[in-house]
Amino acid sequence: MAPSEVFARRRARLQQSLSGPALVVSGFARPRNFRGNRYPFRAESHFLYLVGRSLEGAVLALSPGRAVLYAEPPDPIEALWSGPMPSLDALAKDLGLEVRPIAELVVDGPVALLPPQDRETASWLEELVERPVDAGGAELAGADAALADAIIELRLRHDEAAVAELREATRVTGLAHQAGMRATRAGVRECVVRAAMEAEIIGSGMTTSYGSIVTVHGEVLHNERHDGWLTDGDLLLADVGAETPGGWAGDVTRTWPVSGRMSGSQRAVYEVVESAQSAAIAAVRPGASFRDVHRTAARGLVRGLCELGVLLGDPDDLFARGAAALFFPHGVGHLLGLDVHDMEDLGDRAGYAPGRKRSTSPGERYLRLDRTLEPGMCVTIEPGFYRIPFILDEPRELGELASAIDRRALEQLSDVRGIRIEDDILVTPSGAEVLTAAIPKTVPEIESAMRA
Amino acid sequence: MAPSEVFARRRARLQQSLSGPALVVSGFARPRNFRGNRYPFRAESHFLYLVGRSLEGAVLALSPGRAVLYAEPPDPIEALWSGPMPSLDALAKDLGLEVRPIAELVVDGPVALLPPQDRETASWLEELVERPVDAGGAELAGADAALADAIIELRLRHDEAAVAELREATRVTGLAHQAGMRATRAGVRECVVRAAMEAEIIGSGMTTSYGSIVTVHGEVLHNERHDGWLTDGDLLLADVGAETPGGWAGDVTRTWPVSGRMSGSQRAVYEVVESAQSAAIAAVRPGASFRDVHRTAARGLVRGLCELGVLLGDPDDLFARGAAALFFPHGVGHLLGLDVHDMEDLGDRAGYAPGRKRSTSPGERYLRLDRTLEPGMCVTIEPGFYRIPFILDEPRELGELASAIDRRALEQLSDVRGIRIEDDILVTPSGAEVLTAAIPKTVPEIESAMRA
Repeated sequence: MAPSEVFARRRARLQQSLSGPALVVSGFARPRNFRGNRYPFRAESHFLYLVGRSLEGAVLALSPGRAVLYAEPPDPIEALWSGPMPSLDALAKDLGLEVRPIAELVVDGPVALLPPQDRETASWLEELVERPVDAGGAELAGADAALADAIIELRLRHDEAAVAELREATRVTGLAHQAGMRATRAGVRECVVRAAMEAEIIGSGMTTSYGSIVTVHGEVLHNERHDGWLTDGDLLLADVGAETPGGWAGDVTRTWPVSGRMSGSQRAVYEVVESAQSAAIAAVRPGASFRDVHRTAARGLVRGLCELGVLLGDPDDLFARGAAALFFPHGVGHLLGLDVHDMEDLGDRAGYAPGRKRSTSPGERYLRLDRTLEPGMCVTIEPGFYRIPFILDEPRELGELASAIDRRALEQLSDVRGIRIEDDILVTPSGAEVLTAAIPKTVPEIESAMRA
Repeated sequence: MAPSEVFARRRARLQQSLSGPALVVSGFARPRNFRGNRYPFRAESHFLYLVGRSLEGAVLALSPGRAVLYAEPPDPIEALWSGPMPSLDALAKDLGLEVRPIAELVVDGPVALLPPQDRETASWLEELVERPVDAGGAELAGADAALADAIIELRLRHDEAAVAELREATRVTGLAHQAGMRATRAGVRECVVRAAMEAEIIGSGMTTSYGSIVTVHGEVLHNERHDGWLTDGDLLLADVGAETPGGWAGDVTRTWPVSGRMSGSQRAVYEVVESAQSAAIAAVRPGASFRDVHRTAARGLVRGLCELGVLLGDPDDLFARGAAALFFPHGVGHLLGLDVHDMEDLGDRAGYAPGRKRSTSPGERYLRLDRTLEPGMCVTIEPGFYRIPFILDEPRELGELASAIDRRALEQLSDVRGIRIEDDILVTPSGAEVLTAAIPKTVPEIESAMRA
């Protein structure tokens, strides 16, 4: 199948669900510190899914019977700075799609669209369609909601080309993690390990799919700092993923000891998290509810912490009372695809099956996915253990669970601040495939990779 | 001097120029593919200059007699994800500045402001000040223009703290270039060299100050691709700079041979560019006109190309007829500071002295700086030689200069597509200091660095 065929099929499938015209925009590059200094352009994911090329300021116009791409024609002055651009005819041939100059795009009548992610594109779109467009707005109605649902229906289950992209993204993500393990040593800053990891990604012609987390303070869930010093005795948590040139994301977390050897307490907690993760991965299969997968991990964590003596009481009772959230306050995973949280731009419409809603419980309020799993879905499984002062030192957060924590046992784990283990799992017809299975994960694997 | 003193002095100097209230905003992080996945936040440069901290969604309110920073108070829920944030009191102490919650910021009456770079911040600001704000708009009038002029007056000449930052930025930029030279070899893609260079920057706790150019197609001036293969015989052009955590930029270009040895033709052209650059650097001193510095480089290039036999005729006559622009169509440099093109957000108001305007001539239309140099200014000097088909194969672009090119001599330089040599120069009271002097530049220096 020619590469352009992949996108033609996706468009055709979407067109079958449309009852009227729809626009899918690519968007504009974001300015960094001034408008002439921009981040590399990356098209909106829906556009990438349907067109396969990051063309700035382009619009795919779809109706049940027609697909036209409106794009900027090459500009000879611009060529001096950016090099030759293909003609629209060449682009049409390459993409297997009718291409017309963007100036010819006229909207006369109602048209369905999805809100772009930045205010600039939203404002541009507002002028085109003559109605308000909320940048990043996930509250959709009418034809917009129907368009979103049709796209979700497509993007939820990955086709062969998408799976091939995810394999590439996870392969390079694995190279990055192995490079990070090799680069780790006491006496350098976190940014040195980050550099080694991102160099693998950049050197593979890819980019990071999200801001890398590389930190000895794993208890800060989305830590964006990289200036901490590595000390023997620390655990380093690295949540780093690669994105293919086509825009597909890997998303992996590993946690390893700066010294190359885990202490007894670190190994004990690590193995509790690893075992909870294994149980959750084993629960991933067609027909399984992702909320149950989350609960499998949470229950496994509570059981392990009881065995370590950190939690006091009956594991099932403690789990039912929400004890897992004391140490694992986020969801066990999310959809993975063109976005690291796939289709999160559409809010919970993508992650939550129709009729399902976010829970307000501390253990499940951050769960990003609540659907019945189907072949072709790709999810992350990423339980963790964190000693978060904001939870563990706050009587209000602890509530009646305060008495379930053995403070002395917890104190003995003081060299564990945060552990997370995250893999990317493809649901298959017969079960699941761990796309990131080759990345060192068990304690012996990690210790051996660090010596390499 | 305490770090906070630096910013207090800058604010005090700006306040002396104000006749009424002014707001300087920090802005918001830009979304990548969805709003939950953002580029690392970097505050607007004017804000960084006056406050020294990248605080998202903050506003510095200045009037002749008062300076107040309005900022987001810490959010306990956010702390779970991003870690503990300092209280506004702690921030006030740290910054040496009155700090109040952003919710207390009320604008009642005219206030001067500078347009932020993105539409999102501009829209936010529009609601606050109740008048239109053009994202990245450089057409300023009234109090806004006066505020811009006052800030330019400050930022044009760097204080000691700024120079210290520029030294750090250029030091790490140098590490990156040396790493790039060492990593270069035939049979890999451009991205492999880019990775080695950016790893030095990331590993030093910095970021790139602009999108790295690392390409065997140096004739594309702002080439953003990194997927070309390196072949023995190619020249690799790398235009890469580091930005300090405080936001200050380095900006350096080197061009080196993939094989580690330049061919005779490559060396010949390289030495012409190098000699033009040296002459231009030697012309940098207080009181010199930057347009004359540009012309020194352009004249040197024409003279060298005449010596190589590529240009036919009298060098002075050819220079006067604009022959330099055939091979060197951009300006010789620009201001350098918190922005890689410093204060380019204000348009030519910063780069061009009052009353001076862009030329329309092919050789000078892209000149970004036309001022009389003064101690404390920092500029780049970056002449180049490019074989650009869009110019050299276009009779319309060549005009009557077509007959001045010896096509056979040019053909003999076919293994030279693009060469640029760029350094960062600080104007000092007695002349100039090349901040990037330690980075290998002569042919022997480069060939030796590549063997390291």
